[in-house]
Amino acid sequence: MTNQHSHPIALKDATVTDPFWAAEQELVRTAVIPYQWNALNDNVPGAAPSYCMHNFRAAAAQNAEHREQGKAFVPPQYTFRGFEALPDDPANPDPDKFYGFVFQDTDFSKWIEAVGYSLTHHPDAELEATADAAIDIVCAAQLENGYLDTYYILNGMDRHFTNLKDHHELYCFGHLAEGAVAYYEATGKRKLLDAACRFADYIDSRFGTEEGKLHGYPGHEIAEMALVKLAAATGETRYADLAEYFVRQRGRKPLYFELEDRRRAEEDGRNYEAREQHYAYYQADKPVTEQTEALGHAVRAAYFYSGVADVARITDDPKLLESCERLWRNIVDKKLYITGGIGATHMGEAFSFDYDLPNDTAYSESCAAIALAFFARRMLEIRPKSEYADVMESALYNTTLAGMALDGKSFFYVNPLEVVPEACHRDERKYHVKPVRQKWFGCACCPPNIARIVENVQQYAYTVADDASTLYVHLYMGGVVSAKLGGSDVSLEARAGMPWNGAGTITVTLPPSDAGKAPGPFTLALRLPAWAGGESAADSIHATGEKDSLITRTIRDGYLYLTGTWRDGDVIDFDFPMPVRMIATNPLVREDAGKVAFVRGPLAYCAEGTDNGDNLHLLHADVETIAADPDVVKVNEITFHAQAAAQDERGLGEVEPVGLPMVTLTVPAWRESSQGADGKPLYALWRPAQRQPTEVTLIPYFAWANRGETEMTVFLRG
Amino acid sequence: MTNQHSHPIALKDATVTDPFWAAEQELVRTAVIPYQWNALNDNVPGAAPSYCMHNFRAAAAQNAEHREQGKAFVPPQYTFRGFEALPDDPANPDPDKFYGFVFQDTDFSKWIEAVGYSLTHHPDAELEATADAAIDIVCAAQLENGYLDTYYILNGMDRHFTNLKDHHELYCFGHLAEGAVAYYEATGKRKLLDAACRFADYIDSRFGTEEGKLHGYPGHEIAEMALVKLAAATGETRYADLAEYFVRQRGRKPLYFELEDRRRAEEDGRNYEAREQHYAYYQADKPVTEQTEALGHAVRAAYFYSGVADVARITDDPKLLESCERLWRNIVDKKLYITGGIGATHMGEAFSFDYDLPNDTAYSESCAAIALAFFARRMLEIRPKSEYADVMESALYNTTLAGMALDGKSFFYVNPLEVVPEACHRDERKYHVKPVRQKWFGCACCPPNIARIVENVQQYAYTVADDASTLYVHLYMGGVVSAKLGGSDVSLEARAGMPWNGAGTITVTLPPSDAGKAPGPFTLALRLPAWAGGESAADSIHATGEKDSLITRTIRDGYLYLTGTWRDGDVIDFDFPMPVRMIATNPLVREDAGKVAFVRGPLAYCAEGTDNGDNLHLLHADVETIAADPDVVKVNEITFHAQAAAQDERGLGEVEPVGLPMVTLTVPAWRESSQGADGKPLYALWRPAQRQPTEVTLIPYFAWANRGETEMTVFLRG
Repeated sequence: MTNQHSHPIALKDATVTDPFWAAEQELVRTAVIPYQWNALNDNVPGAAPSYCMHNFRAAAAQNAEHREQGKAFVPPQYTFRGFEALPDDPANPDPDKFYGFVFQDTDFSKWIEAVGYSLTHHPDAELEATADAAIDIVCAAQLENGYLDTYYILNGMDRHFTNLKDHHELYCFGHLAEGAVAYYEATGKRKLLDAACRFADYIDSRFGTEEGKLHGYPGHEIAEMALVKLAAATGETRYADLAEYFVRQRGRKPLYFELEDRRRAEEDGRNYEAREQHYAYYQADKPVTEQTEALGHAVRAAYFYSGVADVARITDDPKLLESCERLWRNIVDKKLYITGGIGATHMGEAFSFDYDLPNDTAYSESCAAIALAFFARRMLEIRPKSEYADVMESALYNTTLAGMALDGKSFFYVNPLEVVPEACHRDERKYHVKPVRQKWFGCACCPPNIARIVENVQQYAYTVADDASTLYVHLYMGGVVSAKLGGSDVSLEARAGMPWNGAGTITVTLPPSDAGKAPGPFTLALRLPAWAGGESAADSIHATGEKDSLITRTIRDGYLYLTGTWRDGDVIDFDFPMPVRMIATNPLVREDAGKVAFVRGPLAYCAEGTDNGDNLHLLHADVETIAADPDVVKVNEITFHAQAAAQDERGLGEVEPVGLPMVTLTVPAWRESSQGADGKPLYALWRPAQRQPTEVTLIPYFAWANRGETEMTVFLRG
Repeated sequence: MTNQHSHPIALKDATVTDPFWAAEQELVRTAVIPYQWNALNDNVPGAAPSYCMHNFRAAAAQNAEHREQGKAFVPPQYTFRGFEALPDDPANPDPDKFYGFVFQDTDFSKWIEAVGYSLTHHPDAELEATADAAIDIVCAAQLENGYLDTYYILNGMDRHFTNLKDHHELYCFGHLAEGAVAYYEATGKRKLLDAACRFADYIDSRFGTEEGKLHGYPGHEIAEMALVKLAAATGETRYADLAEYFVRQRGRKPLYFELEDRRRAEEDGRNYEAREQHYAYYQADKPVTEQTEALGHAVRAAYFYSGVADVARITDDPKLLESCERLWRNIVDKKLYITGGIGATHMGEAFSFDYDLPNDTAYSESCAAIALAFFARRMLEIRPKSEYADVMESALYNTTLAGMALDGKSFFYVNPLEVVPEACHRDERKYHVKPVRQKWFGCACCPPNIARIVENVQQYAYTVADDASTLYVHLYMGGVVSAKLGGSDVSLEARAGMPWNGAGTITVTLPPSDAGKAPGPFTLALRLPAWAGGESAADSIHATGEKDSLITRTIRDGYLYLTGTWRDGDVIDFDFPMPVRMIATNPLVREDAGKVAFVRGPLAYCAEGTDNGDNLHLLHADVETIAADPDVVKVNEITFHAQAAAQDERGLGEVEPVGLPMVTLTVPAWRESSQGADGKPLYALWRPAQRQPTEVTLIPYFAWANRGETEMTVFLRG
C-alpha cells in the first residue's frame, strides 16, 4: 500500500475548462473581484462601507508619522470602541481612525487571495497593478516588529494580544498569510509574502509553551491552516511548528481564554462570571483530542478542524488523526444539512445538538460550507476516502454556490432549507433568514470567501500522492491538470458534464520528450461517488490500458485505483449513473420527519413558489409511486432564466437577466386542498385531506432565489 | 329581544363548591398567596427578590423625611438605572433605593387583589391583618398629589410621565386600582380604594385632550379596564371617562409615543431613529378603530382589547364594538393556540403573523391566556355569544392552569405545545421554553395573575343582564350563585362534573319570603358548548318547568334561553355529550400540517414522554381508524400521581406528591421504528416507515410537566 498522504496540485498546474465551473470562475473574475475592490474602498453606493483600505492607509500614515517624529511620537492609548466601530458622521470618517469590525483587515486579504488565484490563469496587468498598489499600502501599515493588524495599530498597541478570544488578530494574520501565498504563487512577487512572514515571525516570538511567552491561540481559527501553507510556500518549518503549537495548546487547562477573561474583568473592575460551555463556542473548552462533538461557531470549528487535519498529516500523530475522524463523523452523521451546510442555529452561528437540523431557522452559513470543504480536502490529503469527497462536493455545489446569485452580484450569508417570505419579514425569530440575496455586508465574510474558493476550485478536484505515485481525481471537472507521475510530466485532460450528467473522459498526455521512453508506472485513482452507487460505480469506468492488461484496477475506500503503464493518448472514460434519489432523513431528525428531499448527482433540489405556487407545505411527493418506479420523476434539460421579478427599493433581490443550462426535476405529487381555508375555523374535526394530483417542479438548490421573492423548500412532505 | 348587556355577579354572591375549581382555589389560598407574600418581602430562599415591599417602605420613609424637612427636602433627581435595577451587593440593598423592574409595585397590587378575592369566601383575620399592614405601608408611600409609583418617587419625580411608553406608571396605577377594588369589595375597607382614587384623580388632572394636559396613554395597558372597575365600585363616572379617553386617544396622530421618543432622544443627545411598526408592539400605531390585526405584545394587546370592550359596552359605540369583534375574529381565526394560548413568538412576547403558530417555540404566556379570558368575558358582557365563552373556557382550563404546577408551587410563563428537554437546554433559540416549572421570577407577572383569576373564577361563570331579566351561565361550575331576577332574590345551586364529564344540575331556590307569591318571570340562559355539539347540545338540557309549560326555550347565539315562571326547587338538568374529538388545524398553519390534536370537553390533551417514551415525533395517531370510529379512543378515569421524578439543584421541577382525579385518553397509534437509528447515516433512500402498532396515552395539557423533565407534545402526527 502506498503512502496515503497526498497534496493539492499547484493552481498553475490545473485549469478549468468545464462549462459549469468556468462560468462560475468567470463570474467571480468579472463581477465579484472588481465589486469587492470597490467595496474595500467604500465605493459601492448603497452598501455598507468596509473601511478596509481606509484603515490600512490610516495605519500607514501613522507609521510615517512615527518615523518622522521618532521618539517624540505619542502612540495611541487603547480604548475599546466596540466590536464594530463606525464614524459619528458617515460622510466624514476621521482619516486617522479605525472603522469597521475588529477583523476588517481580512477584507483585503480575501480579495488579494482571490486576485492571486484569478491572475494565475487570467493575467491582467491592470488588476495586478491595482493589487500591487494595494499591497504597498498594506505593507506600509506594518510595524517595525512585523505586527500587522490595523485594529490595534490604530487603536493602541498597548493592548494588543490581550483579547485573543474576541479580537481576531491571529485571524487577520491567517487571512493575510493565505492571501500572500496565493499572490506570491500567482505572480512570484514576494512583498506581501515577506510581510506575512515578518508578522508570522513576530507571532512566533511571542507565542509558545516557553516561559515568558504567551500561551494563547487564535480566538477565531484560520492561522493554523495558514501557517501550514506559509511553511509549504517558504520552506520554513517554524511556521508549521507554530501551527502545531496552536493546535495542541488550544483547550489546555488552565484555559487561556478564561485567564484572559478574568484579567480583563479585573482591569475593568467587573466580576468575572464563569460561564459553563462558553469556551466551547471557540472549540477551546478542552483539547481537541478530548473533543467528541462538533460544537460552537461553525466556521471557527471547521477552520480549526482543517488546521488540526493539516497538523495531523504533517505529524502523523494518531491521536490528532482520530480527533479529526471523530469530529468528522459527528458532523456527517448528526449535524450536516443535505445541502452540505453546517451550523444549524443562528445563536452563535453555531452547531446545534445532535440531529437538530431545522430547515426554516437554519443558519448554514456560506462560509461554514466552504470551511467544511477545507476540512474535507484536508481529510482527503491524509487518506483518500470517497466520503470526504462526497461531502466536499455537496458543500461546493450546493451551499457554497447558493451563497451567490447567478449574476454574481448579491449574496447569502444564511442558507435556509425552507423559506416563507412573510416569516422573514414578520417573524423576528427569522430575522437572520433573508428571502433574497443582499448586495454586500459590512461584515464581508461570505462573498469574498465564495470568491476565493471558486477561483481555485480545481485545487479541490485533485491531489497527488506525496510519493508521486498516484493522482487522485476527487471531483469530475473539465480541465487540464499536470503532475509529475511515475517520473514523467504527465498531463491529463478531463472532460465532464457535471453536475448535469455523469459522463466524461480523462485523456492522458505524456510529454513528447518522453515519447519512445517507457514511462514508469503510476496510478490514477478515481473517486466512486456515493450518488453514482459508490463502489458499483467502478463498473462505469474503463481505461484503454485495461484492454491490453497494462492497467489493473483495485477498489479501496471508495476510489478506483487504476495502476500500471500509461501511454500517451490513453483514455479513461466514465459514465456514472445519475439517478434521481428520493432521500429521507434519519428518523431522529425531528424537523424532517415524514418528509423527503430529492437529489441527483451532487445536487440537492428544492421547490420554489415561482414554479409551484404558495403554501409549499401542502405539497406531498407521491412517495410510494416514486419508490416503486424512480423513473416517474422526470429529468428536464432546460435553460433557466434568472431575473428578479420583484426588487425592493434597497435593490435587494436584484438579479440581472441570466440564462443558464440546468436540469430540473418534475416529481409526481399531490396538493392538499386549501381552497377557501383563509378565514375558516382554525380548528376542526380531522378529515382526510382532499388530494389534488399535481407535479412539483424542483430546481437545483444553488439556483434558488434568483427569480424574486418566493417560497422555497428543500424537503417535501411524503 | 332583551338588552344584551350583562355584568358579572359580585364575588360575594357566587361560591365555588365544584371539586375541580374549589381545589384550585384552595391551592392558591393555601400555597400561592402565602408564598407570594414571602416573595413580596424577599423571603423566599433561592428565588430572585422582588424588592416590592422594600420599595414601598423606602418611598414611605422618603415621604416622612419630606414632611419633616419641609421645604429643605431635596428630592432625588432622576437618573435611569435600567429597566431592572439590582443592588450592587445583593446582601445589602440600599434601604433608600428602588430595586426591581420599573413595574415592581404591581407585585403588591396583584397579591392584594388575590387576597381580596380569597377573603370574600374565606375570612382569615391573620391574613387580613397582614394585608392591612401592607396597605398602610403602600399608602404611606403615596405623594401628597396622589401619585403612587415608587419607581419615580424614589428615582426622581422630575421625570415622571415622560416615558409612558416603557415605564409602566399607568400600568402600576391600573393594577393598584384593581387590587384596591377587590380588597374594598371583600372587606369594605376604603383605605386602599381611596388611595387608588387619589391616584386616579391625579392622572385625570394630568391627562386628556385639553390643552395643557398630556395627550398620552398607558404603554402597558390595564388602566382602561381598571378605571371602568373603579368607576363601577365608586360610582364616579369621571374614571370611566378617563378610560374612554385612553382608548380613543391611543394611536392618534401625531403618535404620542413617537413624540416622547423624539423628545427623550433630543434630551439624551441621540438621533431619533424612526422604526416602522415599533408602535404596533404597544397597539399604538393607529387608532383601535383602524386596527385590523392583533399585533404586538400579547398581554398588552388583550388587556387593551378588554378595556376597549369595557368602553364599547358603556358607550355603545358601534365603531368600538366592531373593532372588538374584528380583533377577536383575527385572534380566534388566525392566532389562537388550541390550548387557549396567544402570543406565538417570544420576540416581544408577541402575536406573530396570521396562521403562524409554532408549537416548539411558542410563547403563549400564562398572562396572555388570562388576558384573553378577560377580553372574552367582556365580549360576553356586551353580547352573550357562546364562542366567547368557548374560548374563555379553553384559556382558563388549559393554558392558565398549565401555568401552575399541580402542587401550586412552581410556575410557567411560557406554555409551549411541544417540548424536547434537550432543545431547551442546548438550543438557545428555545431559551425561553422551560421543560419544568420554575419557582418564581424576578418579573412576577404570571404566578400572581394566575392566583387572582383562579380566586375569582366564578365571576367568569355567570353574568346578569343589566335589566335583571336574565342570568347567563357561561361556565358549568359547581357552586351557589345569587342574583336579583324577575324582582326576586333568586339563588341557584349548580352541580357539575366539569371538566371530566358534561352532566350536572342547576337548582332554583326562591327566598322563603317570596313563597306563595308568584315571582316575576325571568330567564336562565345556558351556554351550549361547542365541544358538546353547539346548538344541538340544547337537547341535553331539561328544566322542570318545561313539562308544565311554565318555561319556554329559545336558542340564540349559542345560548339556550329558558324563560318563564320559575318555582322554588325547579331543576335544570343537563348532560352534555363529551366526545373525544380529533382535531386538525386549518391547512394554512404550517406547523400543524399533517398533525392532529385530541380534545375532550374544554380540555386539550398532550402526550408526555413519561407515558409514551422518547421521540414523540415518531408517534402517529391512527387517524383513519379513529375517524371511522371515535370510540376506539379509550377514556380512562384515573388518579394522576404528580411528583417530579427528577429535580435539579436549583429545585426546578420540584413537585410535591399530589394525587388527583383525572381523565386520560388512550389513542390507537403506531410508532415509526427508530431502532438503531443513532449513528446510522443521516440521509438514505426513502423507504416506507416500519410501523409498530402501539397506543398513545394522553393527559390533560394543564397537567403536563408534573412528573419531572420529559418530552411533551400536543400535536401528534397523523
